[in-house]
Amino acid sequence: MSDLDPEEFRRLGYAVVDWIAGYRAGVGDLPVRPAVEPGWVRAQLPDALPEAPRELGALLGELDRVVVPATTHWQHPGFFGYFPANASLHSVLGDLLSGGLGVQGMLWSTSPAATEVEQVLLDGLADALGLDPAFTWAGGGGGTIADSASSAALVALLAALHRTSGGAWRESGVDGTERVYVTAETHSSLAKAVRVAGLGARALRVVPPSRGSLAMSADALAEMLAADVAAGLRPVLVCATVGTTGTGAVDPVAAITAVTAPHGVWVHVDAAWAGVAALCPEHRDLLDGTRHVDSFCTDAHKWLLTAFDASLLWVRDAAALPAALSITPEYLRNSATDSGAVVDYRDWQVPLGRRFRALKLWAVIHGFGLEGLRAHLRGHVALAAELESWIVAEPGFVLAVPRSLSLVCFRLQAGDDATRALSERVNATGSALLTHTVVDGRYVVRVAIGSVATEREHVVALWDQLRGEALRG
Amino acid sequence: MSDLDPEEFRRLGYAVVDWIAGYRAGVGDLPVRPAVEPGWVRAQLPDALPEAPRELGALLGELDRVVVPATTHWQHPGFFGYFPANASLHSVLGDLLSGGLGVQGMLWSTSPAATEVEQVLLDGLADALGLDPAFTWAGGGGGTIADSASSAALVALLAALHRTSGGAWRESGVDGTERVYVTAETHSSLAKAVRVAGLGARALRVVPPSRGSLAMSADALAEMLAADVAAGLRPVLVCATVGTTGTGAVDPVAAITAVTAPHGVWVHVDAAWAGVAALCPEHRDLLDGTRHVDSFCTDAHKWLLTAFDASLLWVRDAAALPAALSITPEYLRNSATDSGAVVDYRDWQVPLGRRFRALKLWAVIHGFGLEGLRAHLRGHVALAAELESWIVAEPGFVLAVPRSLSLVCFRLQAGDDATRALSERVNATGSALLTHTVVDGRYVVRVAIGSVATEREHVVALWDQLRGEALRG
Ligand SMILES: Cc1ncc(COP(=O)(O)O)c(C=O)c1O
Ligand SMILES: Cc1ncc(COP(=O)(O)O)c(C=O)c1O
Repeated sequence: MSDLDPEEFRRLGYAVVDWIAGYRAGVGDLPVRPAVEPGWVRAQLPDALPEAPRELGALLGELDRVVVPATTHWQHPGFFGYFPANASLHSVLGDLLSGGLGVQGMLWSTSPAATEVEQVLLDGLADALGLDPAFTWAGGGGGTIADSASSAALVALLAALHRTSGGAWRESGVDGTERVYVTAETHSSLAKAVRVAGLGARALRVVPPSRGSLAMSADALAEMLAADVAAGLRPVLVCATVGTTGTGAVDPVAAITAVTAPHGVWVHVDAAWAGVAALCPEHRDLLDGTRHVDSFCTDAHKWLLTAFDASLLWVRDAAALPAALSITPEYLRNSATDSGAVVDYRDWQVPLGRRFRALKLWAVIHGFGLEGLRAHLRGHVALAAELESWIVAEPGFVLAVPRSLSLVCFRLQAGDDATRALSERVNATGSALLTHTVVDGRYVVRVAIGSVATEREHVVALWDQLRGEALRG
Repeated sequence: MSDLDPEEFRRLGYAVVDWIAGYRAGVGDLPVRPAVEPGWVRAQLPDALPEAPRELGALLGELDRVVVPATTHWQHPGFFGYFPANASLHSVLGDLLSGGLGVQGMLWSTSPAATEVEQVLLDGLADALGLDPAFTWAGGGGGTIADSASSAALVALLAALHRTSGGAWRESGVDGTERVYVTAETHSSLAKAVRVAGLGARALRVVPPSRGSLAMSADALAEMLAADVAAGLRPVLVCATVGTTGTGAVDPVAAITAVTAPHGVWVHVDAAWAGVAALCPEHRDLLDGTRHVDSFCTDAHKWLLTAFDASLLWVRDAAALPAALSITPEYLRNSATDSGAVVDYRDWQVPLGRRFRALKLWAVIHGFGLEGLRAHLRGHVALAAELESWIVAEPGFVLAVPRSLSLVCFRLQAGDDATRALSERVNATGSALLTHTVVDGRYVVRVAIGSVATEREHVVALWDQLRGEALRG
C-alpha cells in the first residue's frame, strides 16, 4: 500500500486547494457559531474506521456535511471573540510547504535549514519590532517559535527556576519557597505554568493594580518582593503583561524591571496579542521597558496573520533555556551538537519533535511584506477607534475601559443582565461572535477586531446590530 | 493590505502543490543528510525582512536555493534514522484542510467539530488497535491528540501527581517525596517530564532490567516500590515502554501492573513508535497487559503515516487530565462548558490553543483505509526481517539485539570504532541515514525501517552498501 504518487497528489492537492478557496470565499455567509448540540457531530460519523481506502471526495463531502456546519468559523469576518487567530492564506501556503517537506527539526542536524531559517526570521522580526538587539541571536540572546504563549510562559518559568536555584532545581526540583508574581488580569496560562512546574497555586502572588487601572502596581510589587524575601521565600518570576486578555491593559514594564533588578528575579513579558503591534512605529512604545526583561513573547498566530501554532519567544540569554531543559541520551548525540556551534531547538521546548513552523511565518512576511503587516494592524486599530467613538457617543452604552489598540470593551448602562443578553442575541444571529470578561465585577463585552477578513463594513454591521438589539432589548 | 483572494490562492496553491509533488518525486535523488556547515543557511539569507510583498515564486526559489540543499530529508526512502516521521501525502492534504479551515479548538464551543471528530477517531483507533474499551470515550475513558509523546508523558505525570496527592498538588505543588520509575532504556522525555514537573532528577528511579534483557524487571520494580513506600516516599508513576527508542525492547506491562496495583501508582505506557503496529492482529500482543494501565500513548507521526505532530494519548479516566489541568478564567467561560456535557481539550494539554489535528489523521485513515495502514506496517516489518536474516548470515556483522518489528540493531565484530566508522561512511554517501545507540557499552547502529517511501530496493541498496563499506573499512 503506497502513498499517493506525485501525479495523484497534484490532482488531489488541487481539489483541496479548490475546496479551501470555496470555503474562504463563502465563510462570511455562514453563521460564525454553529447551532449544534453536544454529540451531534459524533452521531453523524460512523463508529468504525474504514477498512478500505476511500476517495478524497468522500472526505470533502464529510467536511461539507458534518464539519463546516458544526464549527465555529475563526476566519469569518464577523469573528470578534477571544483574540482572533487569523490564518491568512499566505500562512496556509507556508504551512503546506512545511508539511510537504515533512522535516522534523528537533536538532540542528535533523534539519539545519529548519533551525537557521527560524533564527534568521526571529532576528529580523526582533529588529522590525524594535526589540532590544540583546534578544537577537546576533546579540547573544535568541528567538524561537513555540507552539503557544502558554508553552512560552512555561519554559520561561523553568529557566527562571533553574537560574534562581543556582542550578539545584535540575537535581532537587522545587522546594516550596518559590514565588511567581502576576496580576488578576494575567492570562490563566501563567497559573497553569505554575501548576505544571510543581509550585502549586500557593506560589502565585497576585499583585494589586495601580489605583484606577488594571495594570500592575510596581510599588505593590516592590513591597511584596521585599516581604517575601524577608520571609525566606524566593521570588522566581514576574510576568508583566502587555495587552491583557480581558481588556488589553499594559503593565508598566520599565517600573517593574526597576523593582525586580535587585532580586535577580526573571521578568517575562507576555505580549501574546498586543506585541506584534510594535511593528508600527506609532505603537513601538508597547516595548518601552523591555530592554531589561529576560524574555518576551508575542503570538504570530493571533494578530500577525500566521495560522496557529506560532508563538514567538525571545530570551536575553541564549543559554538559559538549554541549561534548564537539555537532556541528551545516546541516540540524540551527534557531532554538530557536540561541537557547540549549533542551536538544537528541542532544548527550547517541552516536546522533543518539532515541525518547520518558520515556513508559515516566512510565507506571511514574504507575502505581505512588513508594510502589508503594518497596514493590516493599522486597519484594525482604526476600525476599533471608530467603534469606540460610536460607543462613546451612544446613550445607554458605556465604554468599560479605554480602547487598547484593536480591542474595545463596553457594557450597557442598563446593567449586567442587559449586557449579557445583548451579546447573546448578537451571537445568536450568527453574523458576529463576541466574547466577554468581567471588569470591576461587571459583565463586559469584548470586541476584538483582528480577523484577517474583517473590513469596515463588518464593524459597521456589528454596530448597527448592537444598537438595534440594544434598543429592542 | 488584504489577504490573497480566493482566485489568487487557487493559483498559488496549485503552484505549491506542484512544488511539493516535484520535491517528493525527486527526494530520493538528494543526499539524505546535507553537507552544510553551521551558519551556511543564515549566511544565505538577508538579515532584514522585506518591506514590500514579494511573489510566491521568489519564496519557492529560496526553498530550492537554500532550504532543500540544507535540510535532512525525512521523507527520503533512505531515511533509517531515529524513528522515521513519515508525512504521507494524504496527511499533508488533511493538514492543509486544517489550515484552510483555520479553526482553533481549545474549547468544544470554539469548534464542536474539531473536538468531536477527534473523539470519534480516537475511539475508532482504540478499537482498531485492540485497546481495552475502557480507554474509549464510549467506555468512560478517552483519547486525545497531543503534539508529542513527550507532552503526553508530561500530562500523564501531572494527572498522576494530582491523583496520588489526593488533589493537594494543585494547591501545594510537589513535596519532594514523589518518585517516578523508568529503566535506563526509557526515552529521555520521561526524565524531561520529571524535571519540568519540578521533581528534580532525584525523583527518578531507574529500575534494572531482567537478566539478559533490556526490559524492566517487574521484580526489581516491586522491591523498589516497597522500599520507597517504607521510606515514606510516594510512588507516583511507572513508565512502561513498549518499543524502546534504542532497541525496541518491550517492558512487561502485565507484570508491572500486577506489581503496581497495591500502590495506586499511575502506569503510563509509552509505545510512541511501536504501538501502532497493534493495528495488525499478529502484533496485537504488544498491548498485552495494557488493560490495567492508566494511560497509553503511541505516535501517529512516527510510523502511522501522519505528519508531525500527532501523538495519540488515551487515559482510562476521562476526568483525570481536566482535574489536574483545568483553570477557567472568566473569558473562557461558556454555557457548553458550564453544562458539563462537552469535552474541552485545552484541559488535556499544556498549551491553551490547539489546531484541528484530527483532520490529518482522518485523511490518513480515509486515504489508506485500515487495510492500507496494515499493509504499510507489514511491509516494513518484512523488510526488517530480511535485513536481519542477511546480518545474521554475514561474517563480521553481529545482530546486537533481536529485531523488534521494523527496527534492526547491529554492530561489527571488529569493534566500536569500526562500527562507528561504517555508519559514518554510509551516512557520508548521502544515500542513507543511520543513527546509533549504545547497548551494553557497545556502539550499535540502528536501522529503523519506516519511511513512507522506503521499498525493498532501498533496503537492498543499504545492505549492499553496508557490506561493501565493511569489507573496504
Ligand atoms: C495575554 C495572553 N497571554 C497568553 C495567551 C494564551 O495564548 P496561547 O493560546 O498562545 O497559549 C492569551 C490568549 O488569549 C493571551 O491573551
Ligand atoms: C519510545 C519513545 N518515546 C517517546 C519519544 C518522543 O517522541 P516525541 O517526539 O513524540 O515526543 C520517542 C521518540 O523517538 C520514543 O522513541
